Amino acid sequence: MAIEVNATHDPARRSWVESANEPGTDFPIQNLPFGIFNAGGHVRGGVALGAFIVDLPVLIDKGVLSDGALNAARAACGPSLAPLLAVRAADAGALRERLSHLFRADAVAGRSELSAALVPMSEAELRLPMKPAAFTDFCTSMHHIRRMSGTPDVPPRLACMSLPVAYNGRASSVVASGAPVVRPNGQFEAPPGSGNVRFGPEPMLDFELEFGAWLRGGNLLGEPISIARAQEQLFGCCLVNDWSARGIQFFEMILGPHLGKSFATTVSPWIVTMEALAPFRIPAPGRGEGEPALLPHLSDPSDQAKGGMNIELTADLITGRGAAQRIVRTNVNELYWTLAQMVAHQASNGAPLEAGDLIATGTVSGREEDARACLAEITARGTRPINFPDNTSRVMLDDGDTLTLRGKAVAAGFVSIGFGECTGTIEPARRTA
Amino acid sequence: MAIEVNATHDPARRSWVESANEPGTDFPIQNLPFGIFNAGGHVRGGVALGAFIVDLPVLIDKGVLSDGALNAARAACGPSLAPLLAVRAADAGALRERLSHLFRADAVAGRSELSAALVPMSEAELRLPMKPAAFTDFCTSMHHIRRMSGTPDVPPRLACMSLPVAYNGRASSVVASGAPVVRPNGQFEAPPGSGNVRFGPEPMLDFELEFGAWLRGGNLLGEPISIARAQEQLFGCCLVNDWSARGIQFFEMILGPHLGKSFATTVSPWIVTMEALAPFRIPAPGRGEGEPALLPHLSDPSDQAKGGMNIELTADLITGRGAAQRIVRTNVNELYWTLAQMVAHQASNGAPLEAGDLIATGTVSGREEDARACLAEITARGTRPINFPDNTSRVMLDDGDTLTLRGKAVAAGFVSIGFGECTGTIEPARRTA
Repeated sequence: MAIEVNATHDPARRSWVESANEPGTDFPIQNLPFGIFNAGGHVRGGVALGAFIVDLPVLIDKGVLSDGALNAARAACGPSLAPLLAVRAADAGALRERLSHLFRADAVAGRSELSAALVPMSEAELRLPMKPAAFTDFCTSMHHIRRMSGTPDVPPRLACMSLPVAYNGRASSVVASGAPVVRPNGQFEAPPGSGNVRFGPEPMLDFELEFGAWLRGGNLLGEPISIARAQEQLFGCCLVNDWSARGIQFFEMILGPHLGKSFATTVSPWIVTMEALAPFRIPAPGRGEGEPALLPHLSDPSDQAKGGMNIELTADLITGRGAAQRIVRTNVNELYWTLAQMVAHQASNGAPLEAGDLIATGTVSGREEDARACLAEITARGTRPINFPDNTSRVMLDDGDTLTLRGKAVAAGFVSIGFGECTGTIEPARRTA
Repeated sequence: MAIEVNATHDPARRSWVESANEPGTDFPIQNLPFGIFNAGGHVRGGVALGAFIVDLPVLIDKGVLSDGALNAARAACGPSLAPLLAVRAADAGALRERLSHLFRADAVAGRSELSAALVPMSEAELRLPMKPAAFTDFCTSMHHIRRMSGTPDVPPRLACMSLPVAYNGRASSVVASGAPVVRPNGQFEAPPGSGNVRFGPEPMLDFELEFGAWLRGGNLLGEPISIARAQEQLFGCCLVNDWSARGIQFFEMILGPHLGKSFATTVSPWIVTMEALAPFRIPAPGRGEGEPALLPHLSDPSDQAKGGMNIELTADLITGRGAAQRIVRTNVNELYWTLAQMVAHQASNGAPLEAGDLIATGTVSGREEDARACLAEITARGTRPINFPDNTSRVMLDDGDTLTLRGKAVAAGFVSIGFGECTGTIEPARRTA
């Protein structure tokens, strides 16, 4: 059951925090995403609003929260948002409603007091919202699957269209936006297919523009989650860069990706709640002719009606010399599976999902040429370089390159909301002993 | 650097706890493995000794521990052994030395006091030592790889012989020995390859006899662990049953195994320390003609000399009707890669390993016919049933079947030590909604 649009989404609502009203801001009063930040050496939870962070511990001290809203705010006060994901959904909703009320432009009382809870984002360091309990990476764009197969005109394998294919990722190397990404060392064939195996710095370092979701607490061992209830397991969403070492990955991949993916995964710092995303829900993608029908355990009328999301995604590549180019423009609506289907699938065998689990959609590639969402697709595996105005070019990432993902949820009649940047800069490989 | 044999391994040493001296016991005084148990509603850490558990909180209360030994015992007192894995190796070693001293047969003082710390194992419920920080499953038996490929006479792919292939498993469904294993529901083709996709109870439920290791704290993000230091990351070992739903696995496996493995993984309850295993170390397997040489980052003289282990492993299948048969006899020495190589490989890309990580070797299949260590191998994918004396047969596991793994480390001139049982009984699939 998708969350309904309510007064917190009212496009007429403005904030007395003026930067939240600026056109194009990621954080209007309709967004109110949660994050963890460090300012003055104190790591705590906050809510983004315009160019500020609402400091939740300070807000509690001001005595302006009570009941469910207070309970949710307390769960978000520590150095990790994990406790927040375990509170009742109604409490998180109450906190959102209260924040929207306190900071709306027509609120008259207490502004000066509330101003004390506003930390300029420019003075804060954004942290990972929490260490994921587990990280599962799906592969749900048929456009990505087709292009990566090397035979784009052949339909994907039956399994890809029957279930949302996934693999378990590595949670310990999930990092916050801005953390440097060290080029991994590893084994690969040089040249590929030659049988000449080397160990050294990855020669084909790539990114993958993905969309992700943080899960609430889930099911007990042995007990699946129905597709009708899967939506409730989603707390909120983020952007994910699934950095990929293609040389390592293509060589090692007997039982799926391992070291080619596990060296780093960057997530955007804010968790944009499912409630904030309610206005941007659209129908789930249908099934075309010749494609397998949805099995009942992945089919739910509400999910079919509102399981998709209209979220525009971009990737910008900035070289170490400062040349910049937008290299991807795609949309979450390109995906073949919904987040609820991913959750229901993953729990269908009785594996427990846990509060703080992170799932990602896999590369959000679309049909269009500029919607290729990783370099392996964009450069057709290195045969079509990206050219920059300064006469440099790229087929894969160089040391010093910065890759930045952005996302914006868009719907007619509603104020767009964003996710903040998901960015990382490539550092040279460490010398091997 | 492998841990050296010392006085705690002395084969002449006996215990005043008589059951620890019985021939064939898994838990002579030379073993002293750590575990978590519940007795009287209080979950805490203990050490197996014969038919008893040394209750560590009680031992601390008796005031017989000090310094490093006390520090290690305190870290093992709670409901999880995770803190123990983070203490200094010297402290864990001091606790072992002290326990060996207190309970040896020629210790005269304090026996009646120490007896108060002995809980009969029959009155305790053994728990999972800790929730794994992460679970990584390797695939390091070339015999398993060859037989599962369907073309056993063809050498494994180059990657299998160049690196220890692995995939990330699911930590949330790792369970203690004795926990029931619910047959998972999932998607599979019926019959395989038919294109007829169904969702329902797994028709081909299998086990995999594996060996595992619990890791100490490891490396920082971006920093590998050298093969020379990888041994130090191993705290101790256990048995692992990587239950496998073959119908689900074979259908879903585009990016490796996922739901076909994540419904349950059973581990033996005791962590047999690397120190206890010191006498059983043997040379690592060499490389045969035509096989790739070890790359330097996986090659270490000490690991080559002592990276292997002589540990006999068995699997017994007991049907719901009570018919029983030993269906596997194999040995850890059949593996192509050492535990240290697995650790060094996994950290080679800079992914942080963490205290409480669980790694498993993959199916420990050997060359001999009776060393096939899963049903897919034993029954040649269902074409050669296992026949029981009561005229029943099996090609895969039925509901009500119990599968029990056991292990015994063996070396001439030393007392053998064991791991305790790793067992699970299959429960019927839950009805789908």
